[in-house]
Amino acid sequence: MILILTPNINHEGEAYRHLMTYLSRLPNIQSRVHHEQGVERALTEIYLIGNTASISVDEMKSLPGVERVVRVSEEYRVIGRHKNDDRAAHFEYQGVRFGQDTLNIFAGLCAVDTLESVETMMRHLREHGQVCTRMGAYKPRTSPYSFQGHGRKCLPFVFELAGKYGIRVIAMEITHESHIAEIHEALHETGNPVGVMLQIGTRNTQNFEMLKKVGRQQDFPVLLKRGFGITLDESLHAAEYLASEGNHKIIFGLRGIKTNLGDPHRNFVDFAHVSVVKRLTRMPVCVDPSHAIGSRSRGPEGILDLMHATAQGIISGANMVLVDFHPEPDRALVDGPQALLLKELPHFLEDVQIAREAYEKRKALAERYEAISKTNDEQQIHATDLA
Amino acid sequence: MILILTPNINHEGEAYRHLMTYLSRLPNIQSRVHHEQGVERALTEIYLIGNTASISVDEMKSLPGVERVVRVSEEYRVIGRHKNDDRAAHFEYQGVRFGQDTLNIFAGLCAVDTLESVETMMRHLREHGQVCTRMGAYKPRTSPYSFQGHGRKCLPFVFELAGKYGIRVIAMEITHESHIAEIHEALHETGNPVGVMLQIGTRNTQNFEMLKKVGRQQDFPVLLKRGFGITLDESLHAAEYLASEGNHKIIFGLRGIKTNLGDPHRNFVDFAHVSVVKRLTRMPVCVDPSHAIGSRSRGPEGILDLMHATAQGIISGANMVLVDFHPEPDRALVDGPQALLLKELPHFLEDVQIAREAYEKRKALAERYEAISKTNDEQQIHATDLA
Amino acid sequence: MILILTPNINHEGEAYRHLMTYLSRLPNIQSRVHHEQGVERALTEIYLIGNTASISVDEMKSLPGVERVVRVSEEYRVIGRHKNDDRAAHFEYQGVRFGQDTLNIFAGLCAVDTLESVETMMRHLREHGQVCTRMGAYKPRTSPYSFQGHGRKCLPFVFELAGKYGIRVIAMEITHESHIAEIHEALHETGNPVGVMLQIGTRNTQNFEMLKKVGRQQDFPVLLKRGFGITLDESLHAAEYLASEGNHKIIFGLRGIKTNLGDPHRNFVDFAHVSVVKRLTRMPVCVDPSHAIGSRSRGPEGILDLMHATAQGIISGANMVLVDFHPEPDRALVDGPQALLLKELPHFLEDVQIAREAYEKRKALAERYEAISKTNDEQQIHATDLA
Amino acid sequence: MILILTPNINHEGEAYRHLMTYLSRLPNIQSRVHHEQGVERALTEIYLIGNTASISVDEMKSLPGVERVVRVSEEYRVIGRHKNDDRAAHFEYQGVRFGQDTLNIFAGLCAVDTLESVETMMRHLREHGQVCTRMGAYKPRTSPYSFQGHGRKCLPFVFELAGKYGIRVIAMEITHESHIAEIHEALHETGNPVGVMLQIGTRNTQNFEMLKKVGRQQDFPVLLKRGFGITLDESLHAAEYLASEGNHKIIFGLRGIKTNLGDPHRNFVDFAHVSVVKRLTRMPVCVDPSHAIGSRSRGPEGILDLMHATAQGIISGANMVLVDFHPEPDRALVDGPQALLLKELPHFLEDVQIAREAYEKRKALAERYEAISKTNDEQQIHATDLA
Repeated sequence: MILILTPNINHEGEAYRHLMTYLSRLPNIQSRVHHEQGVERALTEIYLIGNTASISVDEMKSLPGVERVVRVSEEYRVIGRHKNDDRAAHFEYQGVRFGQDTLNIFAGLCAVDTLESVETMMRHLREHGQVCTRMGAYKPRTSPYSFQGHGRKCLPFVFELAGKYGIRVIAMEITHESHIAEIHEALHETGNPVGVMLQIGTRNTQNFEMLKKVGRQQDFPVLLKRGFGITLDESLHAAEYLASEGNHKIIFGLRGIKTNLGDPHRNFVDFAHVSVVKRLTRMPVCVDPSHAIGSRSRGPEGILDLMHATAQGIISGANMVLVDFHPEPDRALVDGPQALLLKELPHFLEDVQIAREAYEKRKALAERYEAISKTNDEQQIHATDLA
Repeated sequence: MILILTPNINHEGEAYRHLMTYLSRLPNIQSRVHHEQGVERALTEIYLIGNTASISVDEMKSLPGVERVVRVSEEYRVIGRHKNDDRAAHFEYQGVRFGQDTLNIFAGLCAVDTLESVETMMRHLREHGQVCTRMGAYKPRTSPYSFQGHGRKCLPFVFELAGKYGIRVIAMEITHESHIAEIHEALHETGNPVGVMLQIGTRNTQNFEMLKKVGRQQDFPVLLKRGFGITLDESLHAAEYLASEGNHKIIFGLRGIKTNLGDPHRNFVDFAHVSVVKRLTRMPVCVDPSHAIGSRSRGPEGILDLMHATAQGIISGANMVLVDFHPEPDRALVDGPQALLLKELPHFLEDVQIAREAYEKRKALAERYEAISKTNDEQQIHATDLA
Repeated sequence: MILILTPNINHEGEAYRHLMTYLSRLPNIQSRVHHEQGVERALTEIYLIGNTASISVDEMKSLPGVERVVRVSEEYRVIGRHKNDDRAAHFEYQGVRFGQDTLNIFAGLCAVDTLESVETMMRHLREHGQVCTRMGAYKPRTSPYSFQGHGRKCLPFVFELAGKYGIRVIAMEITHESHIAEIHEALHETGNPVGVMLQIGTRNTQNFEMLKKVGRQQDFPVLLKRGFGITLDESLHAAEYLASEGNHKIIFGLRGIKTNLGDPHRNFVDFAHVSVVKRLTRMPVCVDPSHAIGSRSRGPEGILDLMHATAQGIISGANMVLVDFHPEPDRALVDGPQALLLKELPHFLEDVQIAREAYEKRKALAERYEAISKTNDEQQIHATDLA
Repeated sequence: MILILTPNINHEGEAYRHLMTYLSRLPNIQSRVHHEQGVERALTEIYLIGNTASISVDEMKSLPGVERVVRVSEEYRVIGRHKNDDRAAHFEYQGVRFGQDTLNIFAGLCAVDTLESVETMMRHLREHGQVCTRMGAYKPRTSPYSFQGHGRKCLPFVFELAGKYGIRVIAMEITHESHIAEIHEALHETGNPVGVMLQIGTRNTQNFEMLKKVGRQQDFPVLLKRGFGITLDESLHAAEYLASEGNHKIIFGLRGIKTNLGDPHRNFVDFAHVSVVKRLTRMPVCVDPSHAIGSRSRGPEGILDLMHATAQGIISGANMVLVDFHPEPDRALVDGPQALLLKELPHFLEDVQIAREAYEKRKALAERYEAISKTNDEQQIHATDLA
């Protein structure tokens, strides 16, 4: 059960104290306070954990300082969509809105290699109006003998170049909690020129200890990728690890499932799950066509499979796209074969735009039919009344 | 290797006789003649099987009656797209064109139950301008104690009603070769009011004996569904069984893969393979969102997952959609939970239209960029020449 | 619900007539009679299908001619193990017993190639006391251009050689119902020198029409292989198709599941399901280590993976082993890489023997502990009584 | 390439210095020194990484202090079995030998709950001659709201009780590097009464940062479980992460693969991979039947599926068994349904013994046939010589 308190409630005030005392006396119930300081107002939510079945919503609503009460189902307590649950399905970071109603493109380098690559990439992004990118400094690799990313030492120049080219958010995978501090430090050193979205890869989806650590900080939003050998349900529970520790700025990423039934694609594309994640939770959904497809193969009309998969994600409502580009794919240290060329960026962006417009038309169409359906139902009821 | 002969070549004439004699003398080479009688012209193709590596394309081209020669790769000889292969990627049936460039909707009943259901369905289809439908008479079921379809006895009324409502093609699953004759007979009895597309389900994708039988007849085109526990490559080889026996009117159907990693969907949606099948073969590609999704769950914007999956297939170039409707899903004998309601038909068709338009825009965009790219390359070459 | 009638009941007699009349009047109940003529006695079972929940076991037991009544669960009505179900879990064919308590080895050729191979194989089998073998005449192959087996034309010499070398049962895959008649005919022509066990391969596990045809004949027992992309439950339902048509002489075959998670093995070995199939049904269970493993790789102690997998199946109670041998694997037309060499036959058989003895010891051990457990329980009850 | 130096080589001596200088001058080659201090002798190995193809084995052998040289393949450099590679496939810890030739049973609690459970378990183990056990303090759970284990606070009493009952090694999962220090500390506090084998679970198989940390310490051996959605090859590479950092005391654990094709078992049992891991690497192989099977279902002969799976692992050469027991499974906080009862311990151990004896007989049999085969080959050569 979640109690949403009146905005800007004073934690030193009597109402709050009274409330907390009351809650502390509930048998077999623990409460966890989540506080979020926005620009204009502070939001406080209290999560009641334990045997909440015996508590009535009305009783809780009547307590001092409580504005609304949501009874959550057992699953996905914090991130879930529950009945009569009007909590937000979006957040802002660095002036960019991420929500179930928006679309953000994160084109960039899978792995940072040279300063030149980074600068060339950033310049192209600015030229095409982009304010987000992906840049990997810490790379998890199957073999210990493969290139593992430049790590902390590349952070300063990446951040500085981001600032120079007007990038506002960089999605960057971390593979250990200590990377958070390294990123903090490098941002501080370079004067905080950019924001970072912490990316947790498919190998660490159930690295619960790291999830807890990442969940405890609220400076950086998190992009959690789906785990490749587990069910969607288990991956969503992993997101709940982040949320239950306090960080609610979570984007859920689909990147394909490992099985040879997806051949010749690198992974089995799972973007039909976009609407499932949006239905079950309030998280925006990201698709990663580069890792899902893993090659530059194209259909007979000349369109890359990778662009087809992107369009599939977007026309069904995906909110973010993570996509690999590289100035010289042949020289990329990681995943070159799947990288798009810089000259393909405008084509990619226009293709994305077509799919997004189609999604918006589909949404408007559904609303129109929903309205018709309601009118019909009402007329029917009216007709019945007259009869 | 495939020899495409001059159209309307006379099989009694000297050129043809000469050619056949020549071919019969090639060591370790067998030839198989494929003859297709169109409305205006007759097409003859000769497939050379065996050690064709030693035969030169030019030599074959110089033979009497030979118009073109295609050297096929080992894989998918007949259905494949080979280098310099301009064979058609479409066919006509009952005045309807099925190709890698068209889109046909087959909305209808998963299983025929009552005459009333069939008639109601057909009427709705006509009202919305549809000329194709799906109607199952023979149903493969996991348990021998489940309803197995009404079989041959429902065929006459299904065909008559199709004729009455202007339906031109019915997709109908068969589970045994004898069903072909039963369909023939029922069509004959009712005066051939409609055409039938034989559908081969996922449980029979590698029922090679049935494939051979179906391949040997050319009266009916075939919709071959992907096998659910085998690779895409193996399923495409199954299509080659049909083609190598002579029937080239094949549509390949994607319907999802069985694995719990696709939960909560009934199957793991595999529509990212649309462009793969179109690249590797010349078959039009069908998607079956009903069996892939298997429920009426919907995203938070109110759009059914099933409609999202359909849009995903279409925006990446799918050529046919097989989709279950039912006047009263609660009373459907098979797969009621996934059926769309009749009143949802116009919404579904408009939604499809949006996705198809998006695909066409994407195709035009790709062509535009391709043209720019070529121009740039030429200018570069020109610049180099001048230098 | 199954009624087991008194042995040798006269179908013309009054008791039987009375019974059938009674059953025909039960509302919403259909009855299906299964008759099996053994050497010494005839067994009649009646399967009641429909709304049997409303029928009492006692009522049925009181009917004339009814000896026992088994209330079956919904699943696996005929092949299943139900509560208080003492129907047999074995059958005899050609003087060989196949049961959940026996072990039969079917070593032989994956595919018949030459008469010499067949004769060499048979001779070796006799030399090592074997009376069963496997020999494939009809081979389902992924590509239509691969060797498809010698088919009916090799049957006469295979059967004659079997007779010459004292082989009693040949397991032979069929891929079409017409093969049953071809086998019948060839057996008749050659004077019925041997018996045949019809094998249904993994590609046809859900070829329900063929299952029904095979189930309708009782001349040949059936080895049904598990389907490779479906659940165990679905494969067991496929066996029920055979049984519900009347053929109860069914052996269920495990042969591995197709998924790259089984690499480097050809399939993912599934022999842990031996005890599951034996628990859920009364079918003997066969393992096919050759197709499951698919190579001649061996562990560091020099034992082939294939022999390890065989031992795993047997130590957990497998009742039949299907295993490929070939006099010259390099020349085998199908699956040479996984074939054992003829000189490895004695080693293989001794290895099997060790595993079987271990299984028997494990079974005796379990019985001993079960007895101890019962005695303890009784003493405890006794002690409680005294207290 | 690995250089194995003369035992007890002096790192301050001239030979060693000379060698290191030489190696440092090889272009594009890095060297990594691995030092292991045994009871009687110190072993030094040098791993050459980089472009080693250009270096000759003979050249390296001729260097001062080098006793043997192993040219490793690209894969599994440290843990792999390479050609002419006679490095050990075993290690000792706490006086217990763990090798590809031994069998160790780790029966115990999946999760520590009460002091009473722990003590009862330990007492039973001593009564049945066991010196190893499993006890989970840190439990990774799908949901953040599930019991996560008692963590560090239960360590002291677990270690003390282990000491009291003569347990020498406890396998204990860790989910974060900090747990190593916690274990160290608790051992120190309690006077080091027992040894600990660090277990890395399937969710962390590719948690490379933790693997590196665990690999850098050599106090505790490591049991690395296979990752459930990745290939065996990828899981073996994860083991190489441990080894390449210096810890060579690694046991590889099979625990089943997540897929519904394994139903009704909790996971798809993968013990056919025992011989594969032993062939590709020098690691002893552990099987975990409790997590693979996940229930107490049993075959018709009364033997638990869990015991069948154990026997399958052992008869094919498994070297360690991790198995859950619990005094009162109904009260277990984690995985109660799969726990064996304490009174089943003697039955389990005797059952294991039967399977192990069968494996040993199989091994002896293979050696006997190998000897016969060699003799035959020699006689053949001799006969050829005479001819």
